[in-house]
Amino acid sequence: MSFYDATVPAFLQILGSLSGLLTKAEAHCEARKIQPDVLFNARLYPDMLPLSKQVQLACDFAAKGCARLTHSEVPSVPDTEKTFGELKARLARTIDYVKTFKPEQFEGAERRDVTFPIGSANTLTLKGQQYLNHFAFPNFYFHAATAHGILRHNGVEIGKRDFLGVN
Amino acid sequence: MSFYDATVPAFLQILGSLSGLLTKAEAHCEARKIQPDVLFNARLYPDMLPLSKQVQLACDFAAKGCARLTHSEVPSVPDTEKTFGELKARLARTIDYVKTFKPEQFEGAERRDVTFPIGSANTLTLKGQQYLNHFAFPNFYFHAATAHGILRHNGVEIGKRDFLGVN
Repeated sequence: MSFYDATVPAFLQILGSLSGLLTKAEAHCEARKIQPDVLFNARLYPDMLPLSKQVQLACDFAAKGCARLTHSEVPSVPDTEKTFGELKARLARTIDYVKTFKPEQFEGAERRDVTFPIGSANTLTLKGQQYLNHFAFPNFYFHAATAHGILRHNGVEIGKRDFLGVN
Repeated sequence: MSFYDATVPAFLQILGSLSGLLTKAEAHCEARKIQPDVLFNARLYPDMLPLSKQVQLACDFAAKGCARLTHSEVPSVPDTEKTFGELKARLARTIDYVKTFKPEQFEGAERRDVTFPIGSANTLTLKGQQYLNHFAFPNFYFHAATAHGILRHNGVEIGKRDFLGVN
């Protein structure tokens, strides 16, 4: 077991399950004659980020998390997706990117410093393990579970097994 | 860094932040003359678990996760909480319990077999690292973030910083 085993498979599990959630959301829209945009832009509260942005942020926390932990170039992906199809393509590209990382790149990464932006003007430096535990994972799972919650609240027939990717 | 560092602090961060979310929920109810039961029993959809159960399950995945990873006796806590105060006490007891674990107990736990129930009739055996990544963490964060989503949807003034415990 290595630090790679603690990171990459965890991100891949949920990125894959998010794609499955979007497939069910699309089917739900088609079956109920709902404009896909309605779910794509749905929020749990007016000043909260919509479904699309929750998925984009989950992609970013996974991709940037792997990059920062391995001291690789941190990717910057514009949020241009306008449809479920485009959002699933974003997830697929993120999955492909996360899969490019090799276990060797994560060797010792749990003890290395990771410096990352917090807010718009500050940075924070943590050891890799702390960065993963206290920043990358909770942010990643937060946006993924919030995406699930938005779809669930809108009546899409999904549950925790879909979130875990075991359905 | 040890496997302990990858588990216990992660659970403690979010268990603590959940207690903070409940404190804000209580204050919200008091300020708006809302019966606390309304939020306590709130759901994002009729066939979804209510706020109280989301918090109870987050407690269970943290406590049982630590117990199973260290091959300790797995605690079983009845879900008897009826108020925010009782739910915060449950979180506090869970935090105390998780804090009883020592780094030595987690040594090598990432490679040891963990057998755990899935559904009502089956068990699954995974290596500790896989159990943590693919079961304990995603379940734990799922219920914690869903609790946040329920409160957010009901107008409690919280955000991701509260979920991360940095507010």
